Amino acid sequence: MSSRPDLEITSPANPRLKQLVALRRRRARDEAGVTVVEGFEELGLALDAGVRPRTLFYSPELMLDADAQLALVDAVRASGVETVKVSRPAFEKVAYREGPDGFLALVPAVRGDLADLWLPPAPLLLVCEGLEKPGNLGAMLRTAEAAGVDAVVAVDPVTDWGNPNVVRGSKGTVFSVPVASATLGETVAWLREAGIRLVATTPDTETLHTEADLTGGVAIAVGTEKFGLTDEALRAADARVRIPMHGSVNSLNASVAAAIVVYEAVRQRSA
Amino acid sequence: MSSRPDLEITSPANPRLKQLVALRRRRARDEAGVTVVEGFEELGLALDAGVRPRTLFYSPELMLDADAQLALVDAVRASGVETVKVSRPAFEKVAYREGPDGFLALVPAVRGDLADLWLPPAPLLLVCEGLEKPGNLGAMLRTAEAAGVDAVVAVDPVTDWGNPNVVRGSKGTVFSVPVASATLGETVAWLREAGIRLVATTPDTETLHTEADLTGGVAIAVGTEKFGLTDEALRAADARVRIPMHGSVNSLNASVAAAIVVYEAVRQRSA
Repeated sequence: MSSRPDLEITSPANPRLKQLVALRRRRARDEAGVTVVEGFEELGLALDAGVRPRTLFYSPELMLDADAQLALVDAVRASGVETVKVSRPAFEKVAYREGPDGFLALVPAVRGDLADLWLPPAPLLLVCEGLEKPGNLGAMLRTAEAAGVDAVVAVDPVTDWGNPNVVRGSKGTVFSVPVASATLGETVAWLREAGIRLVATTPDTETLHTEADLTGGVAIAVGTEKFGLTDEALRAADARVRIPMHGSVNSLNASVAAAIVVYEAVRQRSA
Repeated sequence: MSSRPDLEITSPANPRLKQLVALRRRRARDEAGVTVVEGFEELGLALDAGVRPRTLFYSPELMLDADAQLALVDAVRASGVETVKVSRPAFEKVAYREGPDGFLALVPAVRGDLADLWLPPAPLLLVCEGLEKPGNLGAMLRTAEAAGVDAVVAVDPVTDWGNPNVVRGSKGTVFSVPVASATLGETVAWLREAGIRLVATTPDTETLHTEADLTGGVAIAVGTEKFGLTDEALRAADARVRIPMHGSVNSLNASVAAAIVVYEAVRQRSA
């Protein structure tokens, strides 16, 4: 096992680091076909999910436990991945988060085509329309993984799967849960083709989420926190359900609402 | 209706503004007995919940829709509340959030004594132990309000109810949902006295949350995302339940986990 990096960077002005900073823009990520994974824990989750980084940037001076964590660097290097050692000031300049822990990897972009999704019979899906907050999308991916959801489809998303805050918020589950992005029309056509019912979550119905049949092939759709699902999505839905709500604030956090309905589906399907 | 503020401040060095900045520290808030509410929407929610501000600081230059929003200032002033008009540079200096919208109010501190809680027969409570993230606590308050939870008890909290991020994350529900803070021992004694069963959420049990009886007087307890409930809390619990989980990430977001169990209780109680 080699303990030497392929490259060492000490200057924040190094062009490789400038490329990294440029990847903060979605367009640059799309063009390069990469996703940025920052953080020791997130990298571990991506590796566990079978992701093979293109490059691992690391800074021992920033690691919480360099002795133990450099072993991960060695293991990644031994698998043939390029490793780049970066000085602390240079790493802090390229890190996305405050208080970086010395790990940042470029990994292949998360593919997100409906046609690539493999589904078991009678799948459970989560469809998120128009979500703008990366943190919410990340939280939904964690819920989807925990609940055993078969795929998450982002309809007309404002954010992309490679957004660093999605990766972080998802705790790496963006690499293990099958995901896709598509327009509403594409998604509805694909669901119909596959015989999957679209169940819309909305305040504007009398049917409680606990009263609807959520067994069989079902896609649970949630919209944005402010505006909910679009009229088009509501019209396309095979059923509408609402979460019972008291009080003056008539919207739960979007990821909380998704979790409540998804776990009701889990309950019904295991009953 | 008067359209004149009680005071106008243009200098960021004004001592009233320095007092405001000092309130970022919890100790200063505790000593002054106040909570800071920032933002037009949050202030509206607090007012709707019956909160009477001590002072309203406002900056028309920062308002998104000054014509309409100054009407709220007038209404607050007409009710006898002190109003202070602040110049944009001065307001930006005291604002807690980035991109302030010109509204910041001092309101009486949220009281949080167990002895002050009024409970209906067979109440549903949410007990959060050791929560460190204000955003999570805020999200739980939104869930509690939506689900009709009768009170939220923070056991040994790291944050306080007046933390600006709790107020914001809760969308003002911290002013409408009955809350209390206490030690674990105090909480357990109080629950026993009231005949309320403590149901602990933990991965270390065979009983699913959907299999346990969550009707009657019940307090659902959740711990931190990283470590869960303490051993002391688990020992004190009358029942333990787990949320079924697949996958490699063996913890849901804390506020999501709370919502799943709370809404299962709502389902059982309305069945």
